Amino acid sequence: MSRVAYVNGRYEPLAAANVSIDDRAFTFGDGVYEVCEVRNGALIEETRHLKRLGLSLAAIRIAWPTNEAALKIVMREVVRRNRVRDVLVYLQVSRGAARRDHGFPEGKVRRGLVVSARALNPEVLAARAAAGVAVITLPEERWAHPHVKTLQLLPNVLARQAAREAGAFEAWFVDRAGYVTEGASTNAWIVTGDGKLVTRQADNSILHGVTRAAHFDVAKRLGLRFEERPFTREEALAAAEAFLSSATTIAIPVISIDRKPVGAGRPGEIVAALRRAFHDIAEKSRTIV
Amino acid sequence: MSRVAYVNGRYEPLAAANVSIDDRAFTFGDGVYEVCEVRNGALIEETRHLKRLGLSLAAIRIAWPTNEAALKIVMREVVRRNRVRDVLVYLQVSRGAARRDHGFPEGKVRRGLVVSARALNPEVLAARAAAGVAVITLPEERWAHPHVKTLQLLPNVLARQAAREAGAFEAWFVDRAGYVTEGASTNAWIVTGDGKLVTRQADNSILHGVTRAAHFDVAKRLGLRFEERPFTREEALAAAEAFLSSATTIAIPVISIDRKPVGAGRPGEIVAALRRAFHDIAEKSRTIV
Repeated sequence: MSRVAYVNGRYEPLAAANVSIDDRAFTFGDGVYEVCEVRNGALIEETRHLKRLGLSLAAIRIAWPTNEAALKIVMREVVRRNRVRDVLVYLQVSRGAARRDHGFPEGKVRRGLVVSARALNPEVLAARAAAGVAVITLPEERWAHPHVKTLQLLPNVLARQAAREAGAFEAWFVDRAGYVTEGASTNAWIVTGDGKLVTRQADNSILHGVTRAAHFDVAKRLGLRFEERPFTREEALAAAEAFLSSATTIAIPVISIDRKPVGAGRPGEIVAALRRAFHDIAEKSRTIV
Repeated sequence: MSRVAYVNGRYEPLAAANVSIDDRAFTFGDGVYEVCEVRNGALIEETRHLKRLGLSLAAIRIAWPTNEAALKIVMREVVRRNRVRDVLVYLQVSRGAARRDHGFPEGKVRRGLVVSARALNPEVLAARAAAGVAVITLPEERWAHPHVKTLQLLPNVLARQAAREAGAFEAWFVDRAGYVTEGASTNAWIVTGDGKLVTRQADNSILHGVTRAAHFDVAKRLGLRFEERPFTREEALAAAEAFLSSATTIAIPVISIDRKPVGAGRPGEIVAALRRAFHDIAEKSRTIV
């Protein structure tokens, strides 16, 4: 990978891909982001990703850094310059660089826009999907708006690290009422004994995952039933299957939670079916990069 | 002001003061910071600021970026190169630059260290202290650890902007039980009818303000009583005085909350006394920069 990134109007090699120390993403986490899969040169679920970007920007009152058409061109150009066909595109918008002051900058300040690409390792992902992963649970301690895809990710960082140190892949947050919200960077799902998919409703407590939404399309096509409602750790342990989803992972079986086996303690059939069907059914950009 | 900043080992003019797009402060808000007043060339309450920096670093498990003695030298050198005697020194430490992954970077990664200076406008601050300021209240929506001085500041940014748009200077967060926690970037105080200072106890819900702690020293010296306990918006409105504190503001009277007058609706005597005495009593670095 040649490692080229778009930074505030220029395509730069990674070593020169720098931003000002006054960028508000750097000092306040004052920005939003998207991570989008590119598979065989096509952007997956680009429409939903850009729609969510618009919602995130509106939620924290940052204007679009450029129009959507220009942004699509930048994403394609970053992929092209990195000379890869299977990759994640990372897109981050900040409120821009300005003298540090909590309130929004006065006057016209150009939003910060960074688009970069990072390699996916399909073998690692396939192995993870085949073996299944372990999850730990932690108390939900994030701010009141995890549904906005902001850079306020330190609680997610600490949770993911706690998972890793416990020998697990992901941490699921559990709210005060005892219900799972979501993982540090993935949505959480279970499959009931009668084969129904269950995942938390897309309220203010979880990120409205693009891959989560796409899995509903996949489930419909496969004739699977699904329900959006909260579930507890105990229900997950007693479920037939559990899994997590994101643009990076698509669908990965969860075989244990807090070291206790989920169902039979091995990857399930339904998550495997979702994973197999996903790329046939998910929206792919018609413009091949 | 010549605007020079220390960035990861080098002193740079602001235009060249850049960090990698892979710095985890930029992508995750994965870092902590301090803001320290310099008055007449002396760092105010440096010992407490560096002690708190150590607590913040430990809380999110980042090792010191350099030893404390070296950090003190960098702070002095930044002030010296900016050729100012009254200024705020801003110091930020991140977990460093690494390929984006929520968990901590594997292997040795150098922590990100930025030290910059920004001018204080003593006239603006004095005028604000003389006139008093308005405050609005907003629901407490931050994460579970506001006592750690991290870069997770977007809720504070949005609150400060809401205050500004309401014609106020600061927003006070109010917890579910109806008690004021603190402001977007200041601690919150009231003075009771019998002249006692009241501010919330330094639990996990507020930043343990250095200036807040120094005000206890000042109060003792002035023979004022004080108490650390929560207070409600209603108690603040009925109080003799209210004020806010931070390294930037020292002590500024609050004359209205949500457009209702605090006490007599004008700056009080006790906050004025604290403010006058502050710089005589607060710890000043012996090494004059």
